[in-house]
Amino acid sequence: MTVQCETFSFEVHAEDGMARAGEVETAHGRFQTPIFMPVGTKGTVKAMTPEDLTDQIGAQIILGNTYHLYLRPGLDIIRKHGGLHEFMNWDGPILTDSGGYQVFSLEDLRKIKEDGVEFQDHIEGSYHFFTPEKVIEIQEVLGSDIMMAFDECPALPCSDEYMRESLARTTRWETRCLEARTRTDCALFGILQGGTSPEFRRAHIEELCELPFDGFAIGGLSVGEAKDKMYETVELSTPLMPHDKPKYLMGVGKPDDLVECIARGVDMFDCVIPTRNARNGQCFTSQGVVKIRNAVYAEDMRPLDPNCECYTCQNYTRSYLRHLYKAQEILSARLCTLHNLHYFLELTRTARQAIVEGRFEAFRKEYYARKEHA
Amino acid sequence: MTVQCETFSFEVHAEDGMARAGEVETAHGRFQTPIFMPVGTKGTVKAMTPEDLTDQIGAQIILGNTYHLYLRPGLDIIRKHGGLHEFMNWDGPILTDSGGYQVFSLEDLRKIKEDGVEFQDHIEGSYHFFTPEKVIEIQEVLGSDIMMAFDECPALPCSDEYMRESLARTTRWETRCLEARTRTDCALFGILQGGTSPEFRRAHIEELCELPFDGFAIGGLSVGEAKDKMYETVELSTPLMPHDKPKYLMGVGKPDDLVECIARGVDMFDCVIPTRNARNGQCFTSQGVVKIRNAVYAEDMRPLDPNCECYTCQNYTRSYLRHLYKAQEILSARLCTLHNLHYFLELTRTARQAIVEGRFEAFRKEYYARKEHA
Repeated sequence: MTVQCETFSFEVHAEDGMARAGEVETAHGRFQTPIFMPVGTKGTVKAMTPEDLTDQIGAQIILGNTYHLYLRPGLDIIRKHGGLHEFMNWDGPILTDSGGYQVFSLEDLRKIKEDGVEFQDHIEGSYHFFTPEKVIEIQEVLGSDIMMAFDECPALPCSDEYMRESLARTTRWETRCLEARTRTDCALFGILQGGTSPEFRRAHIEELCELPFDGFAIGGLSVGEAKDKMYETVELSTPLMPHDKPKYLMGVGKPDDLVECIARGVDMFDCVIPTRNARNGQCFTSQGVVKIRNAVYAEDMRPLDPNCECYTCQNYTRSYLRHLYKAQEILSARLCTLHNLHYFLELTRTARQAIVEGRFEAFRKEYYARKEHA
Repeated sequence: MTVQCETFSFEVHAEDGMARAGEVETAHGRFQTPIFMPVGTKGTVKAMTPEDLTDQIGAQIILGNTYHLYLRPGLDIIRKHGGLHEFMNWDGPILTDSGGYQVFSLEDLRKIKEDGVEFQDHIEGSYHFFTPEKVIEIQEVLGSDIMMAFDECPALPCSDEYMRESLARTTRWETRCLEARTRTDCALFGILQGGTSPEFRRAHIEELCELPFDGFAIGGLSVGEAKDKMYETVELSTPLMPHDKPKYLMGVGKPDDLVECIARGVDMFDCVIPTRNARNGQCFTSQGVVKIRNAVYAEDMRPLDPNCECYTCQNYTRSYLRHLYKAQEILSARLCTLHNLHYFLELTRTARQAIVEGRFEAFRKEYYARKEHA
């Protein structure tokens, strides 16, 4: 008999249109949805300590990357620590991807077989083989609170024939993931593929949502397709997904995307944008993007975002932040990352509050109005 | 009449051999000596926030660099903020160097004249002229609690003739610094030069310590001379310097140097070693240096320093720290910098305690014993 997760549960607290406010329970505590999950690829959310994430940003769950952690430091070292939580000193919930997306991004360095994917380490060149069983084993060693099934994310555009084959294989792989579980404290989410084709999407949702996953993710989006296609695909998908399980949109996105996809029923998001862009001096604010390197900020005595209560905005001017960025100081990455993550988390917090209070549409309008009036 | 500082005072609380425990008062609060001052060259102690410095490390005073801040962001921007404290969000004491050392390091890019030094910005190539009056003006704009006089730090070895000329010019420049002051809340320290020659050192101390500076620094050391020469020069200098004023050894050093020079009567230290070496993965511990990149630490589950109570040592293994370093994560620089600065500050704190309790020699022996028994 298939092992099931005993520590995972999800509850919808409120709905407003398609938007939902809920709560997820995991082996490492609860988080409230809709939620943005900061990405901690290599066992650290870049430039942040766990205390920054909890105390300054209000992060409730973070991501780890199976592919990167498997290669470096490797499973032996993480096993020796007792798991990823202990390794990186984060005792809240962790979601790990399956490594599928990274492996498929390798292009020339990987070969797809029925059993799994052979690939070369992008840094050291060594050969590895990921199967559905292997990625579950890895994620169980990591001690992930939410594991992701192993899927193929086909590069778009692709032929209908290839997509059909790929989806069938992904379903076989994900089914094997369910069967490979041994831990009862690690939830497992299925991943829905199908590109931007409504037919393929519907077919894959129908097929996969029958399976006893703890939640479902919309994969294969935010990979270069037009934004309206992305929104359409989300809008088509969420009503077909189980109401009583979390709906996670992988790799999305910018603040507008969060607002639009919360409106379309998404509960969970992750993306490197707030952290990566912060390191490039691109800051998200209630009034739009501030590119802090620009000369116009040299003597700007205002905080990044006058409507923000984060540590950065409470203590530093745009002028100082520009100086740090130009001087290539590490504190630049810290302060901008802290602000951006705070902004993303605050956005999901206020969206949730609006849903609970039944005024999500007003919230959405206000969000756009603030940007326009900047 | 010469302006005098009204906010500065120094008191010796205890003496043990040549070692002293004291307290300095400045316009931005007090600090206890002996003290190590973290270096914040460009308006940030690299990788640290002000809260890290106060809450995690126990820093009581930090350094800023006149040369770097004058060039970038420039005085207009710092003036607009109301000074360096406000610019960088640090409300404790700040000591600023005079820029002399940096300017003289430029070698081919500078020309010494009687009035001052002409130099080229090492990055942008623009021409500038530092005079004693100019460096005091800059430091008063920065709002430094302890300004340093403008001196020449001659490259060693140099001829007796050059040294004699240089010392005479330095004395003239430093005298002009005293006369250039306009603020009563910015203390001013004189800088003693003379290389490693006992004669020149004695002569310069005798000449300069007559002048009404608020404290005195031993400059021109830690520039490549043999370690025993450095210690000898310090040992020769401190007894000749005024007992009732702080004695500051500039640009020193490693933990052994702190212990040895506290033993020789030094009250204040600064150096980039703990911060710079941290970014290169070199960590100072009670058991000696740990080069965290080394393969031997890959599976080392111990903290950096088993005798350390810093955030890094309380929460992370050497194995994790090595992983961060190898992955070139910003958190590596943060955690190692935090540890190294904590170690340096803790060293001066425990040295002070030992002096107060009249057991400095025992402390010194214990310090070396710990390293040997590692």
